[in-house]
Amino acid sequence: LSGTVYLVGAGPGAADLLTLRAVRLLAAADAVFYDALVPDAILSLIAKGEKVPVGKRCGRHSAAQHFINKRLLDAARRQDVVVRLKGGDPMLFGRAQEEIEFLVRHGVQVEVVPGVTAALAASAELGVSLTRRGLSRSVAFVTPRTGEGERANDWLRAVLGCDTAVIYMGAGEAAEIARALLDAGEAASTPVAIVESASLPGTRRVAGTLAELPALAGRLSSGPAVILLGEVYADLAARERAPASERSASQAA
Amino acid sequence: LSGTVYLVGAGPGAADLLTLRAVRLLAAADAVFYDALVPDAILSLIAKGEKVPVGKRCGRHSAAQHFINKRLLDAARRQDVVVRLKGGDPMLFGRAQEEIEFLVRHGVQVEVVPGVTAALAASAELGVSLTRRGLSRSVAFVTPRTGEGERANDWLRAVLGCDTAVIYMGAGEAAEIARALLDAGEAASTPVAIVESASLPGTRRVAGTLAELPALAGRLSSGPAVILLGEVYADLAARERAPASERSASQAA
Repeated sequence: LSGTVYLVGAGPGAADLLTLRAVRLLAAADAVFYDALVPDAILSLIAKGEKVPVGKRCGRHSAAQHFINKRLLDAARRQDVVVRLKGGDPMLFGRAQEEIEFLVRHGVQVEVVPGVTAALAASAELGVSLTRRGLSRSVAFVTPRTGEGERANDWLRAVLGCDTAVIYMGAGEAAEIARALLDAGEAASTPVAIVESASLPGTRRVAGTLAELPALAGRLSSGPAVILLGEVYADLAARERAPASERSASQAA
Repeated sequence: LSGTVYLVGAGPGAADLLTLRAVRLLAAADAVFYDALVPDAILSLIAKGEKVPVGKRCGRHSAAQHFINKRLLDAARRQDVVVRLKGGDPMLFGRAQEEIEFLVRHGVQVEVVPGVTAALAASAELGVSLTRRGLSRSVAFVTPRTGEGERANDWLRAVLGCDTAVIYMGAGEAAEIARALLDAGEAASTPVAIVESASLPGTRRVAGTLAELPALAGRLSSGPAVILLGEVYADLAARERAPASERSASQAA
């Protein structure tokens, strides 16, 4: 007999973009294992549970995954409500499957609580819908792999195949990403936007064209960011390039 | 001078999958304009505001969009807090752009509150991550257009270009979708799943192969559903096909 492990989406960062279910689970948890990017305002909602940082940033491994798996299993054998808190949504670039399969294989009950993913928080910040009648009926969510290897270019096919694309965990490699997309045939004039730290006080937004992507990324700090790409960002990119006098007049929202 | 219109994501249906911000806005709203699919448990969170159904189902037009735009503008001129409540997330298949641009053009302040989109709620129900190390690094969210026209097949390119695909608003056309995907070269053995009414008490899940998609869809009722497609669903599809005795043993979660 063991407790339940809840894989909970922490959302993009703002505490009030947590779901009610996430808030209740944080209050009830006996232990919470959280990623490096979860802000303090969210951790402060943990009422009594042990707080255990597991050090993953943006889904990259820093604590080894098998070590996290083992700690979750140990906790579930001792406690009733174990929360595994992941930035954004657990099922999109959250490495959830490895944890789910390990726990289920060991007889532990697992429940997943979905969250607001970064692409949607970024879209809210920009005020630009990912889809749009007559312009975009498909959206790709990808992580780039700019190195070598058999499937190294699959993410390019995904971006080129969809009307709108959101690239997670790519702002640090903006130059390589822009180069790869241009080499694959994407137009240099394709509108792009980058949103850093969506929903948080220090959020920043930049927009322009694919050719300008490396320069745009250079204007940001080191917070988590998504790159958005497609014709739906054409007006935004044009507005960014307008003189400041016109810009203030057109930015009513 | 006018009030603010908040485009708020209502999430997949369960009231406790609303964000805290959405709950606070529903409590504070002077008027709430809501889509047909928003459940009563969510509408009951509206404390004092006028409740105005605007009759859209799944992003399809039933009240004409220009009429909704006009009513939102009228409300913003009379009231401080106007909520436009949309199923899922406003920026993904929510026709948000038409409302945002109309309101901004008329000088109304607009804010977007992101929500949990159906694909993520469905993934939580299935316990299967959309992405997975070594198997899926890209996900397409699409709406199909099974008719004629210049860009009628763009959604196929999106599905074929990504490792995992989620088809919104397609369960009613499952036969046409399966036919179009097979004709476009997708393998008949591609694993698929359908989740109906994700997060709600009547939720149903079915899984199998692309060849079986029409039959799988026939086992569902008429609730909102997403079709999920890709190798990440291979285990799920195999489990569905196993004899009941094996199935109960393997369904620990």
